[in-house]
Amino acid sequence: MRLSRYFLPTLKETPSEAEIVSHRLMLRAGLIRQHASGIYSWLPLGLRVLRAIEQVVREEQDAAGAQEILMPTIQSAELWRESGRYDDYGKEMLRIVDRHERDMLYGPTHEEVVTDIFRKNIKSYKDLPKNLYQIHWKFRDEVRPRFGVMRGREFLMKDAYSFDLDAEAARRAYYRMFVAYLRTFRRLGLKAIPMAADTGPIGGKLSHEFIILADTGESAVFCHRALLDKDVPANVDYDGALEPIFDEWTSLYAATDEKHGPDHGVPEGELISARGIEVGHIFSFGTKYSTPMGATVTAQDGSTVPVYMGSYGIGVSRLVGAIIEASHDDAGIIWPDSVAPFQVGLINLKVGDAETDAVVADLEARLRAAGVSVLFDDTDDRPGAKFATMDLIGLPWQVIVGPKGVARGVVELKRRATGEREELSVESALARLSGR
Amino acid sequence: MRLSRYFLPTLKETPSEAEIVSHRLMLRAGLIRQHASGIYSWLPLGLRVLRAIEQVVREEQDAAGAQEILMPTIQSAELWRESGRYDDYGKEMLRIVDRHERDMLYGPTHEEVVTDIFRKNIKSYKDLPKNLYQIHWKFRDEVRPRFGVMRGREFLMKDAYSFDLDAEAARRAYYRMFVAYLRTFRRLGLKAIPMAADTGPIGGKLSHEFIILADTGESAVFCHRALLDKDVPANVDYDGALEPIFDEWTSLYAATDEKHGPDHGVPEGELISARGIEVGHIFSFGTKYSTPMGATVTAQDGSTVPVYMGSYGIGVSRLVGAIIEASHDDAGIIWPDSVAPFQVGLINLKVGDAETDAVVADLEARLRAAGVSVLFDDTDDRPGAKFATMDLIGLPWQVIVGPKGVARGVVELKRRATGEREELSVESALARLSGR
Repeated sequence: MRLSRYFLPTLKETPSEAEIVSHRLMLRAGLIRQHASGIYSWLPLGLRVLRAIEQVVREEQDAAGAQEILMPTIQSAELWRESGRYDDYGKEMLRIVDRHERDMLYGPTHEEVVTDIFRKNIKSYKDLPKNLYQIHWKFRDEVRPRFGVMRGREFLMKDAYSFDLDAEAARRAYYRMFVAYLRTFRRLGLKAIPMAADTGPIGGKLSHEFIILADTGESAVFCHRALLDKDVPANVDYDGALEPIFDEWTSLYAATDEKHGPDHGVPEGELISARGIEVGHIFSFGTKYSTPMGATVTAQDGSTVPVYMGSYGIGVSRLVGAIIEASHDDAGIIWPDSVAPFQVGLINLKVGDAETDAVVADLEARLRAAGVSVLFDDTDDRPGAKFATMDLIGLPWQVIVGPKGVARGVVELKRRATGEREELSVESALARLSGR
Repeated sequence: MRLSRYFLPTLKETPSEAEIVSHRLMLRAGLIRQHASGIYSWLPLGLRVLRAIEQVVREEQDAAGAQEILMPTIQSAELWRESGRYDDYGKEMLRIVDRHERDMLYGPTHEEVVTDIFRKNIKSYKDLPKNLYQIHWKFRDEVRPRFGVMRGREFLMKDAYSFDLDAEAARRAYYRMFVAYLRTFRRLGLKAIPMAADTGPIGGKLSHEFIILADTGESAVFCHRALLDKDVPANVDYDGALEPIFDEWTSLYAATDEKHGPDHGVPEGELISARGIEVGHIFSFGTKYSTPMGATVTAQDGSTVPVYMGSYGIGVSRLVGAIIEASHDDAGIIWPDSVAPFQVGLINLKVGDAETDAVVADLEARLRAAGVSVLFDDTDDRPGAKFATMDLIGLPWQVIVGPKGVARGVVELKRRATGEREELSVESALARLSGR
């Protein structure tokens, strides 16, 4: 993509309405624009990041045996009356009346809809286990939206729902998602710590929040220091025993504010007290929805039993902000390779200089042919402005090409995360960037 | 994917609520389930088709120079008051009041939102032309939703919006989308004919609907027979002259009911009168929104001028139904290769027979390694039921493996579209399926 054609409205000034660094940088780097309170449009660069995160989440859900579906955003109120949550949910639920005076709502979550799909289509224990997930937009009418996409009203979420024959199978389903979450957040470059959590309006007994530590986090969290350096399993057999991984991660103390108490048992000096951002939340709630809604299957002995369920959420749009909170410096964003909107920013320092133009055009074509995504700054801005923009938008690599280097047969390669710069031949730069 | 684990609830009986064949087949093949009137959930197989169509649409939009963004589904009513459409739009607009008593709505279209993005971020002719598109869910509160996803209330649409300095540039932008649409529908296996059309509530003077002919089409259409055999350009330079392509396609008579009249000038016997399904609609409407909303740029001479706009829609979820209307037989759906949910259906006729199992497992692994998507029927259903399911869901190729063939070193390859069957060695079958 050529920057001269790209819709990338960056801002030099810091937007005054943004309280936290990720919100400021998302506005400045042209990732999003606010439409209304807590409601955003995603511009081309931001959407590429959102899609990249979505894809990592999807791959790890698929690997764990979950199957992707897509449920509607607008739901019938009827199902919520069946489950008993319609009146409980309060003002965060956006309630709607359609032209035929039917009560509808914009889904804040989808337990009811997916349970309805299940009960109408699955009848036998032979069809279990099942885990159905979607990556879709939700709406919660927050009283005070803030922090940009971190606490928006319309937001993108991955929500999975597991269905099992009994409590033991449901526990295995929970472990599968627990491990998939560890792997997902690690691939996104985050250290997310599972913490015992309250279940809130979703309900249930077994629940963990996945929290990343950041000064701007919305709540206080507490955990054992050793959790910060724990390994995430590289290769997982999701049909095998996952309890050891679960036990290893949950045997050390970690709790959100609501669950934290004086009897934590962590030795002096080992307890971290910090602010945290919730990026995932998983629940096992048994038959809380299946019983009132009649989601049953025929068991092996011929009896009819309510199915055991769990639900598993990841805040996909929130993750864009959370990743920036965890990975930025004074100059701008530093994208992890896994979610970068482009892998390489290619800077032509002297557009119009025939030899420089030729080297840059050749580099761009060969990077693209190698499957490396490139944002090519072909504008006639000053070098200083070009460097500032590239640092701001945070692509992992910058390739800087100017007449002096070209005369010596070299280009400059800069790693955004470390600031390291290196002069290389075009061939070596290509090998480095496409060999990863 | 193994069928024994896959969530694919097919139906033997024909659902009584479905009036047209695509709706019946989408329910029977387990692609969708209705949630409420005109509102559907997409099950795994249906979602794969939807995503495949989306990807074809995206690639052709990108090739034509459009840039993908994502705007919110929930919009502020304010902008619609500015454009003057808030009161015009009628009951099809789903109106919502949020917890702070602000008027909101579920976007039935996005001219206002995108014009607002434009005016806040683009100021100069140097930044033109621009074409911003999204693929996102919309809601129109149809008084009588029917025909499944063909006339739903919540539906997936690709909507693009072009911004140009003057009428001539806007016309070129229109041609780019016109040609991109020809190519998109052809890649989807459809013969879509551009027809002069009324502009309705979007407004403007230049407008074409892209229509495919089908007996179940919602409206009467008329066109010159020669349009059915017209070629679609294979390689297009979108920066080059596109008017010849536009002229070639629009010089022959084609009109929807509203535009059709006795002075069509088509010779007796050359005029086709048929039913049509609208799959795309494009508009050029000049400054209809930019003037009231103050979307202006500074021109080369320093003057401030309102930008010329167009909008360009493709009904992505509707296309799933339209493709089925155009491509099915008594046994079920026949997916074009470009949108098939899996390329190959692999049938093991005798699960449990060690040699057959081994051949099938080998085939599955090697197809997958070659990047061919496979749905593997590993259930213990009768062969007849397996064949019926595969025909119903319409994957382009079936590979049938049974003990008799295995003893002779062959498998059977069936092309769904033609019914042609052929016995081949495993190696030859692999080469055929992965060599495409």
